[in-house]
Amino acid sequence: MALTFPRGFRAGTAACGIKAFTAGASAIPSGQRDDLCVIHSSRLCDTGGVFTTNKIKAASVVIDQLHLQHNRVQALTITSGNANACTGAQGFKDALQIAKLSADRLDLDPDQVLVSSTGVIGRYLPMDAIKPGIAEACGKLSDEGGAAAARAIMTTDLAPKTAELELELAGATIRLGGMCKGSGMIHPNMATMLAYVTTDAAVEPGLMGKLVKSIADRSFNQVTVDGDSSTNDTFLMLANGAAGNQPIRSGTLEAEQLEMALLEVAQQLARAIARDGEGATKLITVKVTDAFSDADARLAARAVAASSLVKTAIHGGDPNWGRIVCALGYSGAELALDKLHLTVGGEVVFAHGAGVDVDLSAVRHAFEQPEIEIVATLGLADGRAEAWGCDLSEEYVRINADYTT
Amino acid sequence: MALTFPRGFRAGTAACGIKAFTAGASAIPSGQRDDLCVIHSSRLCDTGGVFTTNKIKAASVVIDQLHLQHNRVQALTITSGNANACTGAQGFKDALQIAKLSADRLDLDPDQVLVSSTGVIGRYLPMDAIKPGIAEACGKLSDEGGAAAARAIMTTDLAPKTAELELELAGATIRLGGMCKGSGMIHPNMATMLAYVTTDAAVEPGLMGKLVKSIADRSFNQVTVDGDSSTNDTFLMLANGAAGNQPIRSGTLEAEQLEMALLEVAQQLARAIARDGEGATKLITVKVTDAFSDADARLAARAVAASSLVKTAIHGGDPNWGRIVCALGYSGAELALDKLHLTVGGEVVFAHGAGVDVDLSAVRHAFEQPEIEIVATLGLADGRAEAWGCDLSEEYVRINADYTT
Repeated sequence: MALTFPRGFRAGTAACGIKAFTAGASAIPSGQRDDLCVIHSSRLCDTGGVFTTNKIKAASVVIDQLHLQHNRVQALTITSGNANACTGAQGFKDALQIAKLSADRLDLDPDQVLVSSTGVIGRYLPMDAIKPGIAEACGKLSDEGGAAAARAIMTTDLAPKTAELELELAGATIRLGGMCKGSGMIHPNMATMLAYVTTDAAVEPGLMGKLVKSIADRSFNQVTVDGDSSTNDTFLMLANGAAGNQPIRSGTLEAEQLEMALLEVAQQLARAIARDGEGATKLITVKVTDAFSDADARLAARAVAASSLVKTAIHGGDPNWGRIVCALGYSGAELALDKLHLTVGGEVVFAHGAGVDVDLSAVRHAFEQPEIEIVATLGLADGRAEAWGCDLSEEYVRINADYTT
Repeated sequence: MALTFPRGFRAGTAACGIKAFTAGASAIPSGQRDDLCVIHSSRLCDTGGVFTTNKIKAASVVIDQLHLQHNRVQALTITSGNANACTGAQGFKDALQIAKLSADRLDLDPDQVLVSSTGVIGRYLPMDAIKPGIAEACGKLSDEGGAAAARAIMTTDLAPKTAELELELAGATIRLGGMCKGSGMIHPNMATMLAYVTTDAAVEPGLMGKLVKSIADRSFNQVTVDGDSSTNDTFLMLANGAAGNQPIRSGTLEAEQLEMALLEVAQQLARAIARDGEGATKLITVKVTDAFSDADARLAARAVAASSLVKTAIHGGDPNWGRIVCALGYSGAELALDKLHLTVGGEVVFAHGAGVDVDLSAVRHAFEQPEIEIVATLGLADGRAEAWGCDLSEEYVRINADYTT
């Protein structure tokens, strides 16, 4: 049930035909799937969010940043099929209108509603189709609605992406649920990633905001690349307190445990994004250890997971480990070739400053598995990180060569 | 005749079977093409070079950086099929051995020879095959040899890439010749780019070194991306003075004119690289004007030319200009959406902060041409730059999925 797994959250969906109307259709095509969802919490949420670093931000991102300042969020409305980005003043009006229409139906103020959109850039939202959709989704709110919501936010994603977790904490059973969308990516440039994590933990106000950036850095930012983010990228964490525990305070052991649980959910979602990359057939996990710092390890892991040449080599089952070493070299991380130790699928391929005389067929075998682990030990200090990617296939090109048409 | 178009430069080539021997062959395959070339100047050259920013540098790059300190270069020996990168101490010995063998044949000191390699990373050079090749190439030196040299440095390049220019300067007729290789790139990560420009201009010692970085920034670095450079990237400019002009001094009008001529040759080569990208069918030229600075303009132009999503859209003839705006947004350049003006193939697609109600079929028609010009006017100051790229096709994936095999 994902987002509705934690108590107090309900979800409803509707099929508005947003993509079809955006492209100029005059009626919803038959068989149109849900493309709008509303998430509602019975209680005020403590909410943290991080958004795209792109200088061009979709209207929904700007609106959310404003609404988050009041930290009294109680609902999300998400649409897929049109990004409402580069749409000028009309785009802001439309995003605000979505918040207001949702708030009216849910008896909230507009600043209690966050909005997200994903899809084609540069077209106005088909508001005539969205208005009745909001009404329908609000009318169908259910604590079973999370699964349908995860499907409603998909664009080119092949499968919905959700994660759930339950733990005992602060004298109560705490639940967490997450959903995301974010295909469109061999990795980076510009595929929108939307991700949401709900929990019924009670927390002191502001805790979610304190944790959200660090969790994004260790999960979603290791699949996408921060600097290459789309106009709409959004990651929100909402805690509504329905579990009834003593509010968890920043700096306590409980806060650390909650952070680990949130991170686990976020990493599960991040891996699901990598696995479901457009045209992907393999999940690539890159682990970097003994780096100069955690930040360096993140750079290094991400460079390898994001390299087009590593991706294509892995797709072809080609044991071209030189491309991995080369990506580490341009990642920006500190690197000493004579200290580098590199394994692919458990086989040592590089050590002591040069390639190891390895059984190439074993490396090739590793590359042919559906999940491939690359471990780079940099031998410098104790920084560590993981990143996730997928291989790059001909199918990726086919999907993206013909996206709006 | 490219590199041998300027007077005093000769070139010779040989077929050594470097790629075949690297992969374990026991004899040169029949029909093996030339994969080694030697360029020789009858006079000492003033030489400038810029090299990869990758922390992992091929042996040849390190050797060249050392040899350039003496600035008395008179020959280049270039091999293709094996990068001699990540090869430890043996790699350095082999690169030095190539310089020494060439120097012996040409009656030079080893530090008067620069060496370059390109190809697979992590394998030792087949020196037994290279040694007789150096002798053969040195024995065949000819002032007609430049065209064969341009073919000998190719790896996955579909065509040799050369440029020539002649101008009257400082009372003499000055000639310039250039050659490069550098496919393997939808754009950035890690395809080796080797580029060389020769001129018979007489210059004061050190002038080539002063100019080379700025010329690379406005040519080759606008096709590749600096931070994503391979282990072997090299750009060298050699001036041997055979034209007999008064030596051109830094800071004079003549130096500016020579710089413009060198830049023109370098940009012709850079465009040839983009046009010949692996699997490319279209050349994309991105012009950015009115940026906050030239450096900002370079960032912005490069981000658009390098975006996988822009490339695939253009490959598919898909008028998805939102992806261009988005790439500008994450480029790092200063950007104000309300001042941005964007044309694709001459059609205005974005202005005044929002998409223009454009004839989509006209944009689509522009995208379907073999050469596509994207012009972004940022409206901030007077910075300007160009970058070049190619579309991303299924063929790119096929080439790179199976490179070493």
